[in-house]
Amino acid sequence: MFDFNHHSHRRYNPLTRSWVLCSPHRTQRPWQGQQEGPDLEQRPSHDPKCYLCPNNQRANGENNPDYTSTYIFPNDFAAVKSDQPTLDNTNTDDLLQVEGVRGECHVMCFSPRHDLTMAEMTNDEIHSVVNAWTESYKAMAEKECVSHVQIFENKGAAMGCSNPHPHGQMWCTDRIPEEPQTELNSLKAYADSHDGACMLCNYASRELADKERVVMENDSYVCVVPFWAVWPFETLVLPKVHVSSLPQMTDEQKTDLADILRRMTCRYDNLFECSFPYSMGIHQAPVRGEFDYSHLHIHFYPPLLRSATVRKFLVGFELLGEPQRDLTPEQAAARLRDLSETHYKHKIE
Amino acid sequence: MFDFNHHSHRRYNPLTRSWVLCSPHRTQRPWQGQQEGPDLEQRPSHDPKCYLCPNNQRANGENNPDYTSTYIFPNDFAAVKSDQPTLDNTNTDDLLQVEGVRGECHVMCFSPRHDLTMAEMTNDEIHSVVNAWTESYKAMAEKECVSHVQIFENKGAAMGCSNPHPHGQMWCTDRIPEEPQTELNSLKAYADSHDGACMLCNYASRELADKERVVMENDSYVCVVPFWAVWPFETLVLPKVHVSSLPQMTDEQKTDLADILRRMTCRYDNLFECSFPYSMGIHQAPVRGEFDYSHLHIHFYPPLLRSATVRKFLVGFELLGEPQRDLTPEQAAARLRDLSETHYKHKIE
Ligand SMILES: O=P(O)(O)O[C@H]1O[C@H](CO)[C@@H](O)[C@H](O)[C@H]1O
Ligand SMILES: O=P(O)(O)O[C@H]1O[C@H](CO)[C@@H](O)[C@H](O)[C@H]1O
Repeated sequence: MFDFNHHSHRRYNPLTRSWVLCSPHRTQRPWQGQQEGPDLEQRPSHDPKCYLCPNNQRANGENNPDYTSTYIFPNDFAAVKSDQPTLDNTNTDDLLQVEGVRGECHVMCFSPRHDLTMAEMTNDEIHSVVNAWTESYKAMAEKECVSHVQIFENKGAAMGCSNPHPHGQMWCTDRIPEEPQTELNSLKAYADSHDGACMLCNYASRELADKERVVMENDSYVCVVPFWAVWPFETLVLPKVHVSSLPQMTDEQKTDLADILRRMTCRYDNLFECSFPYSMGIHQAPVRGEFDYSHLHIHFYPPLLRSATVRKFLVGFELLGEPQRDLTPEQAAARLRDLSETHYKHKIE
Repeated sequence: MFDFNHHSHRRYNPLTRSWVLCSPHRTQRPWQGQQEGPDLEQRPSHDPKCYLCPNNQRANGENNPDYTSTYIFPNDFAAVKSDQPTLDNTNTDDLLQVEGVRGECHVMCFSPRHDLTMAEMTNDEIHSVVNAWTESYKAMAEKECVSHVQIFENKGAAMGCSNPHPHGQMWCTDRIPEEPQTELNSLKAYADSHDGACMLCNYASRELADKERVVMENDSYVCVVPFWAVWPFETLVLPKVHVSSLPQMTDEQKTDLADILRRMTCRYDNLFECSFPYSMGIHQAPVRGEFDYSHLHIHFYPPLLRSATVRKFLVGFELLGEPQRDLTPEQAAARLRDLSETHYKHKIE
């Protein structure tokens, strides 16, 4: 009999329309490769050398204000800029196609505290982050050079983050980037072929009924290890009702979003008792146009596989063939579901 | 005036049909993040503790033979297996789609020498590797559980390699994996809309004429930094004439392939004077069926960006938005073109 816990299979991601190979027996493989330096360090609440802490000097020489909640400023090394010449381009060449990209990049400090990540912030403090994301999205919608706002956070050295001060970024572009565009196309195609139904609304109900991939939920959100997860402990946070973008959320939904983000990041820290690295990001409707079929959602892509120091490498076969994972999403969900929501640093022994 | 060396733009990859953001001014950004341990170590020619060296014991307890050239054995922790139950599957569910995957995984030691990578092997030694790849591909074509052979090499700890002994892998599956399938679809669509012409034949001629992205060439191959490269020093090795798979190559083409692989990996080592990490792999026709439109090619995906210790992280925006690079492919090609083909370890001062 085919057993999903022992036999190789591939699963289909209907959002990106691509396959993932799942080889559950590979977790028994010995690991002699690279080890990460785990982030166990106890940081000070203010670091005089951090260019993100309040009152400190930034990389470009400016001084940060004495901020007390969230703080947003333009990225000093922006990947896209609002003021560049137009690329006159007719794109008639089908081998070398190129287009100019304009936009803005911003950095958002989540809190003045150098030592706190979302896992240890309060619901209220994270609510301020959610509000700041919402206000920024609305402000970007006013800019002619912005069509799409990509909010994301790279957390931890293993995910290319260069500063441990809790912060995220917003890369705002006049083009809809590849990944959200692919997802939007899938959501639209699904709605078109299902009498206007939303794929992610249907998927959320389905997971709530099945339960085996659900990590936790609250009134407004469910957090699952998606059926098609690539990263070992990847999760997807889904609003239970249809919401296309942050400005559409009620205040209660924002409160619940803060709640689910805190609880999820806390579980992540508790998994291997370290500050858990990940890239996370919000996919939502582009700032202008008709995108009712968009269903806002949050992806968490964490690299760790076995411990605070052993990560999954998506290399070789994953880059040349297709993504491959070493445990089933159901196994990962069960691990995450069993964890406490009290942060390991604050545990009473 | 729009200047590709200073202004942000995105380029289209016609093989995978996806966009890449290029932000050339980002190389000036200071880096305070994770540093790699560079691979500068001088290894012994035989390591008694290596489970890939001749005569040594492998992870599964078996002994390696006293091999003198290449040596192939089944992966002790195979991601796919030939003998697993069939998954009875009608795939009527459009949200949770799954299929069973069977196949075989093999490891290939390139040489008995523990201390030699392709960059320091001779053309003749690499020719043996090319022959072994070809014979393995042919042997796999005889197996009912194999439709596609993915040959690849993960080199260096930064690319998840756990053993420095020079080796590659072959993951052979009854399904065509995602990435080669996407490329095959693109090659077919191009041929269909261009009177049967091959996209990669046309692309190779185009790059040979343009010259600015060519790293080097020989009679049979050209090596370019593709117009749509994602990794900082990504390269693409293309046969100049149409060849669909390894068994179609003449002996001269195999000799030339060995030559271009040695010269390319040597240039890579010389770039930052370290054993240069990368994932590389061969895309070619599946083992059975009509794939005349397939054009064999080799991708090199190396992570290093600035030095032996500073890599590019494809995280955050890259995972959630679209791949982003910090220098132009033309700049990368110029750097690689200027390098010597004498390995830095063998330089006469
Ligand atoms: O097979 P290895 O070398 O043990 O493992 C390496 O290559 C595999 C195939 O690309 C990946 O799945 C692993 O994550 C990586 O660590
Ligand atoms: O912007 P940062 O934090 O300096 O840089 C980090 O995030 C960026 C956006 O995901 C990536 O392009 C970089 O490779 C990564 O190191």
